[in-house]
Amino acid sequence: MPRIAYFGPQGTFTEQAARAFATNGSDELVPVATVPEALAAVRAEKADAACVPLESSVQGSVPDTMDGLAVDEPLVAVGEQVIPIRFTVLTRPGMARHEIRTVASHPHALGQVSRWLAENLPSAAPVAATSTAAAAVDVTEGRYDAAVTAPVAAEHYPLDVLATDLADVRDAVTRFLLLRRPGPVRPPTGADRTSLIVEPDSFRTGSLAELLTELAECGINLSRIESRPKRGRLGEYRFYLDFDGHIAERRVGDALAALYRRCREVRFLGSYPNADASMAVVPPNNTDQAYADADAWLDGVRSGRSA
Amino acid sequence: MPRIAYFGPQGTFTEQAARAFATNGSDELVPVATVPEALAAVRAEKADAACVPLESSVQGSVPDTMDGLAVDEPLVAVGEQVIPIRFTVLTRPGMARHEIRTVASHPHALGQVSRWLAENLPSAAPVAATSTAAAAVDVTEGRYDAAVTAPVAAEHYPLDVLATDLADVRDAVTRFLLLRRPGPVRPPTGADRTSLIVEPDSFRTGSLAELLTELAECGINLSRIESRPKRGRLGEYRFYLDFDGHIAERRVGDALAALYRRCREVRFLGSYPNADASMAVVPPNNTDQAYADADAWLDGVRSGRSA
Repeated sequence: MPRIAYFGPQGTFTEQAARAFATNGSDELVPVATVPEALAAVRAEKADAACVPLESSVQGSVPDTMDGLAVDEPLVAVGEQVIPIRFTVLTRPGMARHEIRTVASHPHALGQVSRWLAENLPSAAPVAATSTAAAAVDVTEGRYDAAVTAPVAAEHYPLDVLATDLADVRDAVTRFLLLRRPGPVRPPTGADRTSLIVEPDSFRTGSLAELLTELAECGINLSRIESRPKRGRLGEYRFYLDFDGHIAERRVGDALAALYRRCREVRFLGSYPNADASMAVVPPNNTDQAYADADAWLDGVRSGRSA
Repeated sequence: MPRIAYFGPQGTFTEQAARAFATNGSDELVPVATVPEALAAVRAEKADAACVPLESSVQGSVPDTMDGLAVDEPLVAVGEQVIPIRFTVLTRPGMARHEIRTVASHPHALGQVSRWLAENLPSAAPVAATSTAAAAVDVTEGRYDAAVTAPVAAEHYPLDVLATDLADVRDAVTRFLLLRRPGPVRPPTGADRTSLIVEPDSFRTGSLAELLTELAECGINLSRIESRPKRGRLGEYRFYLDFDGHIAERRVGDALAALYRRCREVRFLGSYPNADASMAVVPPNNTDQAYADADAWLDGVRSGRSA
């Protein structure tokens, strides 16, 4: 029975993502208090996998996840989920809308439904909570009248659903990764993403341009890049890269090997199916067959069979 | 009397940054409720400048600022401040440490002093607030016993200082920009940073590598890069770039003009003195003199004076 540790508490969007990752009913979902604890549980073999948020289209990258993947024992992603961030408002049972005087949630969630609150609960005062689920606990225990939560919270707390599917920003999403200890990489699906952290050998001018040129020459299309300063070392950076492709492909293998030659550190964060199942477009001169043909020609020349 | 709108309320780290930007005693500092409101106040000429956070070494980039700079009328940075994030704990006057049962703050701030709280106020329950300053208001009005705040909050509220200079992460900093409507760019200091948002003409493989190669060939050293998806357009990105140098330099001008030729949009976010006053290292073949010598030679060849 695989155990998936997720950044809790119960009733958050991360629990929704963990449920989406659970492949069968026997998976055990274990909420833990922080992202570092979720990663540590997998490293210590107390859990088989960790489900953590990586980036939000509204809030940006999640630093705890970014930093936690860069240090300590490596972990690799085996899957991603992109969850739409649409909120539910829960109230104490039987409470009428006009009776609602306080509405609690994490400040980020309050910010993402502030327009809806102003229009629909204009006399309710917003109150901060440490998480959307903690707000539901506050309402259950009678401290506040309503909570802005993830949809899944409605299953955990004996509260009424006042409204669902709320979002001032209609297309807000959060991307989650399922992380495991390194092991055999699952074969490519054709719609894969690969994630890396790289740290160039030196930080002279142009070193990042050279790394990206290596990737471009292998026909690799970046989907995300972010620099992040190394803690306590001003002027030294790690680069987080996501791109279309799978490490089992020749073009990706060649690119990673080229980065390895040029970098102080390359950390492989996994090749896994992308959430939208969009097939990679491989340039004709970067297909596995193109590399095999070139190898055969080179062998021939080296051995004197051709020229 | 210049008016500086800052992301408030009073008593936050952003107020500290705004004070650092205020060049003389007559500057008027005006707190506003959100980052978009601060930017809008400058665009609408209701304020002369806006002070907003751009990135935190702990929490990452500030999406409201990133997105707000990419759209609507352009604004340009004229300065940056890097503020150490070290917290103060304020209590109701006369309260003894062992009497403290609740400690309020923004969840991010509570997270950044959680170790200190566990060791020094183990019986105090953490309570979320919408900002560090709102927590100080909560304590002033008797709702909670203690607040974790920015140091400047001690000046605004009639509370006792229990502890100062607290941070689980010792080197946490937040970087703030002072933004104005576009106008004449102040001359270079030699220790300048330039910020840009670029959107390549097309998102084919290698387009970012080409842009960065243009910068590298002009001897320009990046200090930050981040991709951010355009709202509602999956697969299309804006790139946020910071680098050493000033638009008045030939190498920077040449690089920006090259980006302009290759991009759908280049938005100049300002050339301004960097906060640590670190002088740019200009490669010998990218000095203004090197460009002037090359121009003179080219003119000579074109006019037939030399070959």
